[in-house]
Amino acid sequence: MVVTLLTDYGSGSEHVGVLHALVARSAPSTRVLDLAHDILPGDVRSGALTLARVVAHCPVGVHVAVVDPGVGTERRGVALRDVDGRIFVGPDNGLLTEAVAPESVVRAVDLAEYRGCPRGSGSVTFDGRDVFLPAAIDLVTGTNLTALGDSVDPASLVRLAPPESEVSGGYLMSEVVGVDRFGNVQLGLGSDSLTSADLPPGTPVWVTRPDGERRAAVIARTYADVTAGDLAVLIDSHGHLSVVINRGDAAAFVGGSGVRVEIARRSATPAEDDATA
Amino acid sequence: MVVTLLTDYGSGSEHVGVLHALVARSAPSTRVLDLAHDILPGDVRSGALTLARVVAHCPVGVHVAVVDPGVGTERRGVALRDVDGRIFVGPDNGLLTEAVAPESVVRAVDLAEYRGCPRGSGSVTFDGRDVFLPAAIDLVTGTNLTALGDSVDPASLVRLAPPESEVSGGYLMSEVVGVDRFGNVQLGLGSDSLTSADLPPGTPVWVTRPDGERRAAVIARTYADVTAGDLAVLIDSHGHLSVVINRGDAAAFVGGSGVRVEIARRSATPAEDDATA
Amino acid sequence: MVVTLLTDYGSGSEHVGVLHALVARSAPSTRVLDLAHDILPGDVRSGALTLARVVAHCPVGVHVAVVDPGVGTERRGVALRDVDGRIFVGPDNGLLTEAVAPESVVRAVDLAEYRGCPRGSGSVTFDGRDVFLPAAIDLVTGTNLTALGDSVDPASLVRLAPPESEVSGGYLMSEVVGVDRFGNVQLGLGSDSLTSADLPPGTPVWVTRPDGERRAAVIARTYADVTAGDLAVLIDSHGHLSVVINRGDAAAFVGGSGVRVEIARRSATPAEDDATA
Repeated sequence: MVVTLLTDYGSGSEHVGVLHALVARSAPSTRVLDLAHDILPGDVRSGALTLARVVAHCPVGVHVAVVDPGVGTERRGVALRDVDGRIFVGPDNGLLTEAVAPESVVRAVDLAEYRGCPRGSGSVTFDGRDVFLPAAIDLVTGTNLTALGDSVDPASLVRLAPPESEVSGGYLMSEVVGVDRFGNVQLGLGSDSLTSADLPPGTPVWVTRPDGERRAAVIARTYADVTAGDLAVLIDSHGHLSVVINRGDAAAFVGGSGVRVEIARRSATPAEDDATA
Repeated sequence: MVVTLLTDYGSGSEHVGVLHALVARSAPSTRVLDLAHDILPGDVRSGALTLARVVAHCPVGVHVAVVDPGVGTERRGVALRDVDGRIFVGPDNGLLTEAVAPESVVRAVDLAEYRGCPRGSGSVTFDGRDVFLPAAIDLVTGTNLTALGDSVDPASLVRLAPPESEVSGGYLMSEVVGVDRFGNVQLGLGSDSLTSADLPPGTPVWVTRPDGERRAAVIARTYADVTAGDLAVLIDSHGHLSVVINRGDAAAFVGGSGVRVEIARRSATPAEDDATA
Repeated sequence: MVVTLLTDYGSGSEHVGVLHALVARSAPSTRVLDLAHDILPGDVRSGALTLARVVAHCPVGVHVAVVDPGVGTERRGVALRDVDGRIFVGPDNGLLTEAVAPESVVRAVDLAEYRGCPRGSGSVTFDGRDVFLPAAIDLVTGTNLTALGDSVDPASLVRLAPPESEVSGGYLMSEVVGVDRFGNVQLGLGSDSLTSADLPPGTPVWVTRPDGERRAAVIARTYADVTAGDLAVLIDSHGHLSVVINRGDAAAFVGGSGVRVEIARRSATPAEDDATA
């Protein structure tokens, strides 16, 4: 089985390097896949959604995920096996439960008593290296999940509250759930939202931030439907409702994770097309 | 055969993770090499030159490249085999044809009708995942190139116009074709340009931007030939004429891809050495 | 044996891609581990400490490290074997000698006469590709270390001066030796420094920069011991004395590598708690 890694450690960081080194030392024939390491530090929701999206393309494996602003506190570390045989290892803070719904969990254990390797003296803050990755190595090298800790009721696993959203005729409201490297902004609504709101491609809309600032945009099918620099609303390649700028940075206008955004039909008169107030 | 990846997705991004996951799932014994993922978003020329440089050091393989500002438009996706048996897969926007000149292409196919996997509902914008990488997997697992699409005349493949350049005695003009992480600026002239312009190491020069701003520099053999913070012009490790600052960021002065830069001999009197107007 | 890489090239850069390509071409069965590529450009001390930390978790291998502001000058390139059978390859500028103390070196050679592959014409500045990595490939494919160059006296290897530090009752002074992606600042003191200075968890302290600016902080065991945005001093997961901000960027206040920082006990009266002058 492969071991996959998703973290907010940053690509090229020594923290990622150490995880790879540990696998190479203790399970040298195991393949390691880096699913993502550029999650915004501590952004559990973005990490959870990313994990769910990427794992869908992965072979069955042991999927380690660490976005863990509560490390060192009382939050649980857990390992879960789902109905497909996938195993997820990480903090019980909602990071894992978008990729594996609690009702799909066939077994879950608490890693509170698990120690893969002795902690460094005085060190309390690198559970990826000291707990989650060693647990993954044990699992790929034959240890039973149930040997790693006490059973946990799957129903007790932390789930993120769904992002606030609203859909009606000509109107959509949702929260930002992710921003990619290009500044494309993903909202917490799916691929049917534009149809549900009766906003077909070509419809002119306003995109409005919580502070009331708004910009003219257009519903599009693809980036290239709008002129470079113009704002567009489309369904992105992951099936998320997204606000984008063709060859530009939409997040600089919209904002990041958690921001509430409104999208509403506007008339297409030239005066309003140019207005940005 | 190895599969290699060059993209503008950003290292550590889930987009790169998905490509690795797909190979691990569908061609688990295939090695994947990350050639570069930090190409400036949409900078086709920089991607094309980088691909040509790195592929020269690669084993023969299937080389997937995706820098694709026209994704979702009518630009073609193609797969090419060259005289050495290398296969290149990506958009037909000039990205591939620096690494493989059309006259070295022995077979080219259009991927318009190719679908490696069903597209996500509503998704039109991730050809790396949905077309190019699945095509690469088919190719490394035994599918013939010609089975992937209709034949394309190699002469019809898009080539980038060469960067504007001029070389005369004591004078060089060229376009920026790349900027690296350190802020070193590569121009579109090669390793013989300094000799052709009769600008040997030690020659004092002006480096002038399109807006007329100029800074004193010196022709050097290596970064360490100038004091930290000083501008130098040298042939870099890839054989490109480059403007650099020892331990500093030359791009902050010169600018990025496409900017025209002039380099001209100056006298070495102290007054002019200090001038920057 | 594995080949490991630690550089300041930047993750996702073509420079890293070329190193992987060379191994895949010349030693295709060799596993390559990326230990870190995000070392601040030219920060030899940070690279040296990172190498020492990560190698401790690695299987025995050939460990290539390149943080090399002196490339192109007279600094030596070396390859070393230590008492554990690990081999280190890189510039002799102090980068290697934190991971392997000279007294643990059983054999060292000078790579001055070694050429793994012909240099590109006019190229003098990519020793990672042209010298260090080819040497590593030779070593993993059976070449003896002593065949790569003349013997070097281990005692002559460059070592970094230890960071300036001072520890007394209620007082610590040290230099910044590293900054991570989150802005956490590592100082040149170890896990016992807080105990030695009699600064137990909960102690209020001032953190003072060289320019006299100071901010109130508290000695903590973990990030979560302080409110988000507050400054804390703790022993990090690598055993370093560190200045951190829970969910914030401590380096923006403290500064980067080489900066001298003072930590001194303060009274905990509310007035002073709020003061930042």
